[in-house]
Amino acid sequence: MFDDNYFMKEALRQAQMAYDAKEIPIGAVVTWDTKIIARGHNQTEQLNDSTAHAEMIALTAAFNQVGSKYLPEATLYVTIEPCLMCSGALYWSKIGRIVYGAEDVKNGYHKTTGNTSPFHPKTELKGGVLAEECAQLMKDFFAVRR
Amino acid sequence: MFDDNYFMKEALRQAQMAYDAKEIPIGAVVTWDTKIIARGHNQTEQLNDSTAHAEMIALTAAFNQVGSKYLPEATLYVTIEPCLMCSGALYWSKIGRIVYGAEDVKNGYHKTTGNTSPFHPKTELKGGVLAEECAQLMKDFFAVRR
Repeated sequence: MFDDNYFMKEALRQAQMAYDAKEIPIGAVVTWDTKIIARGHNQTEQLNDSTAHAEMIALTAAFNQVGSKYLPEATLYVTIEPCLMCSGALYWSKIGRIVYGAEDVKNGYHKTTGNTSPFHPKTELKGGVLAEECAQLMKDFFAVRR
Repeated sequence: MFDDNYFMKEALRQAQMAYDAKEIPIGAVVTWDTKIIARGHNQTEQLNDSTAHAEMIALTAAFNQVGSKYLPEATLYVTIEPCLMCSGALYWSKIGRIVYGAEDVKNGYHKTTGNTSPFHPKTELKGGVLAEECAQLMKDFFAVRR
């Protein structure tokens, strides 16, 4: 039951909260064992802060929750491929595992890093979980705005 | 009088505050015209948050000060070459200019991005300002700890 799809759906709920608040709809959760220890969604508009991405908010909440600045046993789920900033933050966190939904050709980290991984050598990476649902929310958001 | 050296000395004061608090001694200030609008120093230990770098703290303070999530007319001074996370944050900020002190072979963004700039196309970049002083503070810090 507590598989990657389950937690990605929780990240999608966060993304929907961003959508409802007229934010670019990206959501994230951090898990430890089978528990969600932190959540975050994009709040760049509300906080007037272009660094207030879902992953940054979820990571800082997770550090506070665990009482440690490293998260080697945790997994971060995020609906869209992390950008360069969030990839760098995930590197510093030494997070055990990253699971993302849809790729982001325009702003995903791949665009800048090419074949060099920005993550910690011990971090596992998995993409494409519920990718269609994750991408659809973004398409819906930008369709209304263009 | 208000030249790059002047503001880098202010960033160095921030770095010294980090040093005194037993944090990796990196400091940053953000300027707008000839005024400092935000300051930050590394607080990863104090906040138990591996993303609490000088630049992240200074940027968020600057967004709050200006009331905008973009800083195209501002300059960020930082004592050490930004890491990948902070470079990504600077990209999102659309900051007008970045001035750094010493290079960081181990953790600077160059290591991961190679010849691809992580910054916004309109952002000017200058390195090597008071590089020796900026690097010396780091050397002193790690010399005590090894």
